[in-house]
Amino acid sequence: MLAVGRELLIGRTLNTNAQWIGRRLARKGTLLAEITTVDDDLREISAGLRSCLGRRADFVIVVGGLGPTPDDMTLRGISKGIRRRLRANEEALSMIREHYVRRNMGRIEMTPARRKMATLPIGARPVRNGVGTAPGVRLELEGTTVFCLPGVPSEMKSIFGGFVEPEIVEKLGRLYRKYITLKIEGIYESALAPTIESELRRRPGAYIKSHPRGIREGKSRIELDVAVVNEDRETADESAAQIVREIKSEIEAAGATVVSERGTAPSGRK
Amino acid sequence: MLAVGRELLIGRTLNTNAQWIGRRLARKGTLLAEITTVDDDLREISAGLRSCLGRRADFVIVVGGLGPTPDDMTLRGISKGIRRRLRANEEALSMIREHYVRRNMGRIEMTPARRKMATLPIGARPVRNGVGTAPGVRLELEGTTVFCLPGVPSEMKSIFGGFVEPEIVEKLGRLYRKYITLKIEGIYESALAPTIESELRRRPGAYIKSHPRGIREGKSRIELDVAVVNEDRETADESAAQIVREIKSEIEAAGATVVSERGTAPSGRK
Repeated sequence: MLAVGRELLIGRTLNTNAQWIGRRLARKGTLLAEITTVDDDLREISAGLRSCLGRRADFVIVVGGLGPTPDDMTLRGISKGIRRRLRANEEALSMIREHYVRRNMGRIEMTPARRKMATLPIGARPVRNGVGTAPGVRLELEGTTVFCLPGVPSEMKSIFGGFVEPEIVEKLGRLYRKYITLKIEGIYESALAPTIESELRRRPGAYIKSHPRGIREGKSRIELDVAVVNEDRETADESAAQIVREIKSEIEAAGATVVSERGTAPSGRK
Repeated sequence: MLAVGRELLIGRTLNTNAQWIGRRLARKGTLLAEITTVDDDLREISAGLRSCLGRRADFVIVVGGLGPTPDDMTLRGISKGIRRRLRANEEALSMIREHYVRRNMGRIEMTPARRKMATLPIGARPVRNGVGTAPGVRLELEGTTVFCLPGVPSEMKSIFGGFVEPEIVEKLGRLYRKYITLKIEGIYESALAPTIESELRRRPGAYIKSHPRGIREGKSRIELDVAVVNEDRETADESAAQIVREIKSEIEAAGATVVSERGTAPSGRK
């Protein structure tokens, strides 16, 4: 994911879009491999995209910078990065016209600022934005499918759910993820480390991560996440449960307590 | 900034550390140029660091992955990325011992998991962590100063405020930033675009960015940020005020309303 916008770099805005997309993909068993945030700047966007393409990812999701104002320069940055000229796209122009009709503004004047939202790198296709004005954009490059989505969360979510996620699920196949979080009290991370290590040695594909949560009433608190991704729903489920059983028994043998265990149902692609 | 941690990629955790650091730097007139988030994975951390170094930035701030558990692999990833071996650092070992003494745990056993937190790439120096166990790490590479900070927010903030920020301010000099946000009602972004464009032409160094905030009671709402950074406090202040005056007069001439104007005092490095 390439997030574009200075508001994210100066801490004016929290990148909740990245969290939302990461969570949606994780629930489908897919990992968002990298999130990069860059400034509203042609060179930054261009270099950021090239770096994403260099990963040979299946998908790159670019978020932000599709609006009509001059600070919105994502499509120009992409055009620069992939050396394809920009050209007004007729389909995108009609989407924009229709949007204003839906808002009861009637037939609007196609000013340069509005035309800008429909000016796409050659070969790109617009993707319908059911919420706001600027269409999303889809293009294929060197085996990677690039989607550009508006930064306004409601618009991003609507296009992601309607077009991006279905295509990702279609391409990457069906995977299930079982995710369990244990809350543990009375053991330091440094004392828990050998348990995690031996468990990971036994099950190389598993994900086990500890998050220290400070000390309360003299007791060290940790949240421990366990996740297993598998093509088979029951395998994901059973394998995660097995890891949790083993870790729990070691934790309790060390005199610590598992105060809660919260699991997600094995969520997967439908 | 290089943020390390799968919890950020699967949306378990919002990257509030990036927001906090970005905001702190912006207040000092410095721009966080890029935020990259990668997985707990040696190759990802190594490639992420190399990409940051390739920017020839003055500073790279790496956050997360310094703890004792096997999922914490930032120092190993950096060691791989810069091809410098890891070695137990005596100063870091004493910091860790002292930390446990402060917690009234007395003289603890230096287990492999604890020693791991003091095992740094050759040439790196530990930075005192006044809050948690794992020391921060500072190293100089190819003209870039790299700081590694723990991902636990209270520890990150303490080391950033105590060591990182002062060094950045010392190196990059004194700059002031004046930042003003206008809330505007009754104009679409596409209609506001030409005003912003002509203003930016007049003042190439200024930052002007519009954020659409939806429609309420039939009126389009926009937040417009204006920022000016300058070595001189009064220049930053006056220049931002001038831009705001010009934009306001154009907005009002177009029949829209500025419903509020919120400014920060020109904040700067002391």
